[in-house]
Amino acid sequence: MTHEIAVIPGDGIGQEVTPAAVEVLEAIDTVDFDFIEGEAGDAVKEATGEALPQETRDLAADADATLFGAAGETAADVILPLRQVVGSFANVRPARSYPGLDAVQPDTDIVFIRENTEGVYKGIESEIADGVTTCTRVITEDASEKIAEYGFSYAKQNDYDDVTIAHKANVMRTTDGLFLDAASAVGDDRGASYDTALMDALAMHLVMNPQDYGVVICPNLAGDMLSDLAAGLVGGLGLLPSANIGEENALFEPVHGSAPDIAGESIANPSAMILSAAMLLDHLGYDEQGDAVRTAVESVLDSGPRTPDLGGDASTADVTAAVIDEL
Amino acid sequence: MTHEIAVIPGDGIGQEVTPAAVEVLEAIDTVDFDFIEGEAGDAVKEATGEALPQETRDLAADADATLFGAAGETAADVILPLRQVVGSFANVRPARSYPGLDAVQPDTDIVFIRENTEGVYKGIESEIADGVTTCTRVITEDASEKIAEYGFSYAKQNDYDDVTIAHKANVMRTTDGLFLDAASAVGDDRGASYDTALMDALAMHLVMNPQDYGVVICPNLAGDMLSDLAAGLVGGLGLLPSANIGEENALFEPVHGSAPDIAGESIANPSAMILSAAMLLDHLGYDEQGDAVRTAVESVLDSGPRTPDLGGDASTADVTAAVIDEL
Ligand SMILES: CC(C)[C@H](C(=O)O)[C@@H](O)C(=O)O
Ligand SMILES: CC(C)[C@H](C(=O)O)[C@@H](O)C(=O)O
Repeated sequence: MTHEIAVIPGDGIGQEVTPAAVEVLEAIDTVDFDFIEGEAGDAVKEATGEALPQETRDLAADADATLFGAAGETAADVILPLRQVVGSFANVRPARSYPGLDAVQPDTDIVFIRENTEGVYKGIESEIADGVTTCTRVITEDASEKIAEYGFSYAKQNDYDDVTIAHKANVMRTTDGLFLDAASAVGDDRGASYDTALMDALAMHLVMNPQDYGVVICPNLAGDMLSDLAAGLVGGLGLLPSANIGEENALFEPVHGSAPDIAGESIANPSAMILSAAMLLDHLGYDEQGDAVRTAVESVLDSGPRTPDLGGDASTADVTAAVIDEL
Repeated sequence: MTHEIAVIPGDGIGQEVTPAAVEVLEAIDTVDFDFIEGEAGDAVKEATGEALPQETRDLAADADATLFGAAGETAADVILPLRQVVGSFANVRPARSYPGLDAVQPDTDIVFIRENTEGVYKGIESEIADGVTTCTRVITEDASEKIAEYGFSYAKQNDYDDVTIAHKANVMRTTDGLFLDAASAVGDDRGASYDTALMDALAMHLVMNPQDYGVVICPNLAGDMLSDLAAGLVGGLGLLPSANIGEENALFEPVHGSAPDIAGESIANPSAMILSAAMLLDHLGYDEQGDAVRTAVESVLDSGPRTPDLGGDASTADVTAAVIDEL
């Protein structure tokens, strides 16, 4: 069986790390892929007026899974519709520290399960009077239940004992109140153990005691911030993969952006992108192969060539070759 | 001249740390205070049905300044209306690491200038259909300009070189777009130098490189989270004071809550509350006395008695007496 993978490198270092991840996937000879490339981002917007051309949307919609690199100024115009196109309801963001790498908190292993369809991301905004603007944040019971189901299942399947439901229901009593109630009900129905945490206090505790956390189920924007916070704990965005999971489709992307400051120099760290490809393997049912890729990346991070962001002077290609060597 | 100070200890350790701060203020013989106590919080709600009785509102409204300790379950019912009562538009939250104390990031000295009137804190929520809820986030040009004016002035007066405007305008284009534009315009008009930062990326950078930041001007909820994040960097909420600044009035409170787990044991760390009293002194024009209190607290944190949260076994009273001794 051949899996059709949409590959959307995008802008900046997306152009460098995405081919690296494709190379790694190609090196796995137990799985057959057909890679089809699509365009998105600043460059295609400049050329055509559209950051996300219809054919790229179609490509992602029809593929078995999508690999997306990064976009520049147009990031929101690309990634938010792409998440919709693949019908993603869960954004899965593991933040893990690696042995041998400097980290603010070297004992971190947390997976953020971020609601991926609503909250302020609904994009309902207006200027209701001169100088007065509103954004309508939407929280539904259905989406809250769905993300909680996904989060509790994820924790169980991946052996995380600690599940935390993040919220700000003391202020957003109706919306986050609903999120908290719906997510808690899912936990209760499953007889699962879990904690709930105000997201401000959680931000502090994550910084001080990340080892106390496992899976964190969050509303959309809270997940955006808390997962970036955790990226800071483990050594930066260069290491964080993510999965946008839909019912039938999914998109995998590094948490980092297009990094215009180092783009074109062939020194981008491909780890986050390769780890995103590992999540793609898991998603297609190739858990063993996904684990193999993760183990290879870990081993290279531990004792292989390093790109400048990790204090080394290796190129993207050096790291990619080392990962393939370890497979 | 005698300054009338409303003192609202509230619940839990608020009952222990608030009198400590009052003692410190009383020990300053160059300033005359008249302290008038008011009730608020869980206990008074249980007794009277109201977490914030009208007479406490009036007390805070009429006083020259208010000292507030903490409230338990009713925290939002107490502090949000109190911030309104004192007409506070700016929530000032310094997060500073102290020599000699363990901290995740020992080189942190950041002041969050948090917008204190709008955003999701407007409390405009509804269940618009069964299982579908909305929260209307409000951002106005006036409030955005006002907080930016305050932030830039604060940076100048307190010699902070780095000013950062936090926002999420790539997603909330209209509301945070307005915040970003209005705050940037204030900086430009002043010829001030400043950076702007997406609040998710900022969360990461604050964790990794807090020494790069000085004053951070934020929308309300972003400020809530980012300041708690920074509390984690410097050793926890027990050290963070805050000021809610209004045009004519102001309220000072520690960032920590009522800490029911240690309430009643006389071991609460009074530092955040005493540092809040120092901010009250600044606000009334007694900068020298404010500095003296800060220096005294620093010296005690460095080499004086410590409460259990900082690894010592001193009581609240021991720490308070040591601070007064240092004055
Ligand atoms: C680019 C932006 C729209 C996006 C988001 O806010 O979701 C990014 O921050 C992310 O986390 O993937
Ligand atoms: C208690 C709560 C309403 C409050 C807030 O969200 O402002 C608290 O978190 C704070 O930061 O003072």
